Amino acid sequence: MTAQPNEDTPPDPPSRRVEFAELLEAEFVRRWPGRSVGLDAVHRYAMIPPGKLLRPSLVLHAALAVGGELGAVLPAAVGVEGAHVGSLLHDDIIDRDTQRRGRAAVHTEFGPAQAVVAGNALFFSWFAALSECRRLGVPADRVERAMAVQAEAGVAICRGAFDELAMRGDLELGVGAYVAMARAKTAVLLAAACRVGAILGGGDAPTTELLGEFGDHLGICFQIRDDVLPYDPIAARTMGKPSDSDVRNRRPTLPVLIAHRRADPKGRAALRHALLDETEPELALCRIRAVLERTGALDTAHAMADEYARRARALLTRLPATAQVAHVRALALLTRPAH
Amino acid sequence: MTAQPNEDTPPDPPSRRVEFAELLEAEFVRRWPGRSVGLDAVHRYAMIPPGKLLRPSLVLHAALAVGGELGAVLPAAVGVEGAHVGSLLHDDIIDRDTQRRGRAAVHTEFGPAQAVVAGNALFFSWFAALSECRRLGVPADRVERAMAVQAEAGVAICRGAFDELAMRGDLELGVGAYVAMARAKTAVLLAAACRVGAILGGGDAPTTELLGEFGDHLGICFQIRDDVLPYDPIAARTMGKPSDSDVRNRRPTLPVLIAHRRADPKGRAALRHALLDETEPELALCRIRAVLERTGALDTAHAMADEYARRARALLTRLPATAQVAHVRALALLTRPAH
Repeated sequence: MTAQPNEDTPPDPPSRRVEFAELLEAEFVRRWPGRSVGLDAVHRYAMIPPGKLLRPSLVLHAALAVGGELGAVLPAAVGVEGAHVGSLLHDDIIDRDTQRRGRAAVHTEFGPAQAVVAGNALFFSWFAALSECRRLGVPADRVERAMAVQAEAGVAICRGAFDELAMRGDLELGVGAYVAMARAKTAVLLAAACRVGAILGGGDAPTTELLGEFGDHLGICFQIRDDVLPYDPIAARTMGKPSDSDVRNRRPTLPVLIAHRRADPKGRAALRHALLDETEPELALCRIRAVLERTGALDTAHAMADEYARRARALLTRLPATAQVAHVRALALLTRPAH
Repeated sequence: MTAQPNEDTPPDPPSRRVEFAELLEAEFVRRWPGRSVGLDAVHRYAMIPPGKLLRPSLVLHAALAVGGELGAVLPAAVGVEGAHVGSLLHDDIIDRDTQRRGRAAVHTEFGPAQAVVAGNALFFSWFAALSECRRLGVPADRVERAMAVQAEAGVAICRGAFDELAMRGDLELGVGAYVAMARAKTAVLLAAACRVGAILGGGDAPTTELLGEFGDHLGICFQIRDDVLPYDPIAARTMGKPSDSDVRNRRPTLPVLIAHRRADPKGRAALRHALLDETEPELALCRIRAVLERTGALDTAHAMADEYARRARALLTRLPATAQVAHVRALALLTRPAH
């Protein structure tokens, strides 16, 4: 990782985030209209209103950055958001989270069996979306390569989710193991979104790989910010999901791991007790916050996230300095805390 | 459906079922060896020893029937069995079935969260298998078409599973609605297995479609036989899963629907009561059996299954009368009850 932004890097353009978000949301509404019933009604509830739409934006921006056409990759962008939402549907059941995006979680609203099936349908739709791209004129060999990326990413995400279940409550987890977990949990899908966009858009192998690495770094940065969120009193209020979810699920998040390494025996005991006692998650959250503040763990975690964002942006200096590449780079700023 | 087996149809060859089963099981053992840990250990437990291997056999036989090569489609055959097993992992959680193939179900043995994730991984592996076929020399356009079939089938199966949840306890369900449900539940995947085998093997569109229809008819036949199983005192003992599962899950199976249509008001009340009272599933099963016997519903269901098997076999008379096609046709005999 030696590349540095050079002096010639043009300033970031105003984000096309709003423009793309409107395009994507209009497409969601077209696919899941207000009159939806059955499974479609569940998908509409889960997809609309949408979240930050980072993954589909990466597909679109990566495709444009390699000279691809927006319309032909739009289904793949919708597809990756579906895959993401599908995994959230399952996560919420596994984590016993009853709230998501400020509303009842899908399993709370429609039932757990319905939520499992609806999630699966979104996984399969992720691949059906690639056939749509084919019908819109994307060559078969690109579709086949995009499928390989999606399938491999899907398996890696499951592998990570499975291993994470075994890591619950493990405060001795090293930073390397944490990054591997964050990668599987978040970065793999962001990297896949970039690769799929680049492949469908006609990018060559090195450019596709570079954009994939950008997505990977961005994803780790993003997961670290997500880990910090429950311990940030202002940000936690806008999370839209229970801020005690990580604690209830005894998840070894980065700030907690850093604090555990730095804390004195009393601090360690406090963290261990807070994370293993499931009876009072709100109180546990307060106790953990105290140790995090004493050890400066939140600042260190944010600095590590900043470093991944910096590396992500630096990677893109190896690509031609076009406006489209600058748009991709601008996405790395989205991970900064809102305040 | 006017085609009839003609006089020139060669007799069915001895089944290659054992040969293919050994090939497939060796491949499973290669992929999930005894030393497997983590997610792989769950997959090994779920996949080995295998079930009847009907779906992967359809992939292999369909590919050979159109002149394809066995080795190049083997990953796709493994993949479809994985997709099938993945759906069983989820079904067992949804249906609260604690036994499968004579052993503890995966969610009982490893935990429900682990079973959900392991199922998802098998869904994604179904598509990863197609990239393996690509690497073994199958052209990209065939792989892309096979992906489209798999993705569409996956979505249709989820749609059917979702709708089935809403049909629980509905004894007024017509035969048409029942067949649609059986199609989504079983026939769609069997049809997809045939189509994928035919596409990857290089079959033309009409042959692929014909083999797909064969799989569809076979699947409906198969689902009907499965519906009858819990009410057959001899066969139920060899099911390997709880014979009261359908009753506990208030599933409107074909024999019950036929019996309900034919029964007098007292018989209908008995069926309704047996299916809606969840407290004593074993007793409910006995009561339902009595009405099924009185109304001759089991015979009618078997006759309907026979008819679908006959139609499936008849379809294949439109293909050249080769030994490979005869092997495909022989698979339709597998659905006959063992005694």
